[in-house]
Amino acid sequence: MSHIHNFNAGPAVLPAEVIAQIQAELPNYHQCGISILESSHRSKEYEALNQRAMERVKRLLGLGDSHQIGFLQGGASHQFAMLPMNVLQPGRSGAYVLTGVWAEKAYEEAGRIGSAHIAASSKPDNYATLPAPAMWQVAPDAAYVHITSNNTIYGTQWATLPTASQPLVVDMSSDIGSRPIDASNIAMIYAGAQKNLGPAGVTVVAIHNDFLAQMHTNVPTILRYQTHLAAQSLYNTPPVFSVYVLDLVLAWIEALGLDNLAARNAHKAQLVYDVIDQSGGFYRGHSAVDARSQMNVVFRLPDADLEKKFLASASSHGMIGLAGHRIIGGLRASLYNALPVTSAQALAQLMQEFQRTHG
Amino acid sequence: MSHIHNFNAGPAVLPAEVIAQIQAELPNYHQCGISILESSHRSKEYEALNQRAMERVKRLLGLGDSHQIGFLQGGASHQFAMLPMNVLQPGRSGAYVLTGVWAEKAYEEAGRIGSAHIAASSKPDNYATLPAPAMWQVAPDAAYVHITSNNTIYGTQWATLPTASQPLVVDMSSDIGSRPIDASNIAMIYAGAQKNLGPAGVTVVAIHNDFLAQMHTNVPTILRYQTHLAAQSLYNTPPVFSVYVLDLVLAWIEALGLDNLAARNAHKAQLVYDVIDQSGGFYRGHSAVDARSQMNVVFRLPDADLEKKFLASASSHGMIGLAGHRIIGGLRASLYNALPVTSAQALAQLMQEFQRTHG
Repeated sequence: MSHIHNFNAGPAVLPAEVIAQIQAELPNYHQCGISILESSHRSKEYEALNQRAMERVKRLLGLGDSHQIGFLQGGASHQFAMLPMNVLQPGRSGAYVLTGVWAEKAYEEAGRIGSAHIAASSKPDNYATLPAPAMWQVAPDAAYVHITSNNTIYGTQWATLPTASQPLVVDMSSDIGSRPIDASNIAMIYAGAQKNLGPAGVTVVAIHNDFLAQMHTNVPTILRYQTHLAAQSLYNTPPVFSVYVLDLVLAWIEALGLDNLAARNAHKAQLVYDVIDQSGGFYRGHSAVDARSQMNVVFRLPDADLEKKFLASASSHGMIGLAGHRIIGGLRASLYNALPVTSAQALAQLMQEFQRTHG
Repeated sequence: MSHIHNFNAGPAVLPAEVIAQIQAELPNYHQCGISILESSHRSKEYEALNQRAMERVKRLLGLGDSHQIGFLQGGASHQFAMLPMNVLQPGRSGAYVLTGVWAEKAYEEAGRIGSAHIAASSKPDNYATLPAPAMWQVAPDAAYVHITSNNTIYGTQWATLPTASQPLVVDMSSDIGSRPIDASNIAMIYAGAQKNLGPAGVTVVAIHNDFLAQMHTNVPTILRYQTHLAAQSLYNTPPVFSVYVLDLVLAWIEALGLDNLAARNAHKAQLVYDVIDQSGGFYRGHSAVDARSQMNVVFRLPDADLEKKFLASASSHGMIGLAGHRIIGGLRASLYNALPVTSAQALAQLMQEFQRTHG
């Protein structure tokens, strides 16, 4: 098989070592004689796996006993509804910082369920920038301030997580585990695993005990965070295999070291941004330089015809997933944790060659 | 590795051929050069897989264009909330036939969300029987009648699906795809895949167009059936790998033939029930004979000490998952689709030997 450079925006590339391990132990998990796919979630093997994965998430996010970890289902879109259902008591409002389509969706869903307001928005900039925290207008009754730490479609990312006057809730789906963060200010993190941490089918949540204590109980049982966290994510049958792969990816990150991984991620992004910046305008990045994402490099070529040719050329070099999101068009290179440096190098080289030929 | 007989109640045994195929193609799905775990849900490969799996579910359930198929997340427990949220308009009530713990949970959840009533209950019989449909008391305002087709904890199963005066909703989590059914009367089926159809992490729903047309729209977006069905279960990122395995198990069932599979399932159950019936009371089945489940054989030995010894003996013969549910105790043999006949034979033989030694 030819080597593929997988720039998919999610589900995305996984570490080759993890794929190899899954394959090797697929029929016989830890000498149990059965596959992890056939293992009961009540088995001691799964309970150990589940505990281990929760502890790894805590270490990855720099969280202590102040926070609880849950493994849920339904992705970030499910969290867009579950968060306001659990938190927005009458008389309280959710404050949303709009930095892209996913933040808009989270805001709209909260408004259907309870009261929500826009604290800030970079929509007038076509989401190429991030609104300065000093300018946010958070209502006094805000139960939380919701941000998206990395914006996949527009290619922006907070260089460091902002602080807020109210409990901060972070949709970290597209940059969780890509770098060390300061979690001391965070009331809640949620993230679909399928970009940086594993396969589709599991959503990681981390919730501060104080934030959890304020939540409603008049919410359907399965939609209450308390239900899942009190039961160590074993209230109902968890997505066993997805949590298993999540644990393997977390182990891979720990073996590499989060600081090393962060440096590697910064290096991959720099390789591509450097080509953009040195192209004399042939390649144009969508995001403002100070808001650039290390996860998703979103850029354009001089015209749609060249973009089509570039995609065809990339495809012939085994590069997949480079078409931009349909909302914005152009190109997008997703450079998540598991993408090898060699893939970013190959892309940078192709971009240079393509410009020499077509520039 | 020693051979394991996997009697887990779910997640449960999968066909050995399916495990082998997953293992073989894990690093390179359909010559794409990447794993199915790394594939975009927007790829043409996944869209084909998704379509194929939906068509297979329709054939398996004997459904035509009158019904739509969805692949959701969260398991049956999530459906316990989602069904009443979507269907119970003010002034309408859900009618529940209580035949076990899962039916109770579904009823209780509906009552938290809207109006629900008990149409019938076999609780006075400790759920050893099934209430005759002629005796059900369905309120005139009932939006649906909810039944559980197979009851895992108490080992009962409808020999044929009952008909109802109102739209019938069936939690088929533990016997879906185990035998042909007459679906002409069915408004909705839902089932977590992890017993008969695949791994944990995907929930199959089949909904009649007329039933769908009556649902609310004032429900959070991600919790509306319409959202998922209108988007062919691609509204948000689906649990790609779980749907992939589901498709493989469905293909395995089709290759075997549903009639053949049903005969095989009946045979496996008969092997174990015969030992119970011929044991002179040493083994006592929980369920009434005419309500017996072909999926879960629930039985007791003369005392708890013998049950413990039996479990130890079973374990030494490579038999796992035979402890009864904590609510009822005793023993439970789950004989789902993928359990080989040889495993049921091995259990029947052990039961006979154990009685000879300890009876």
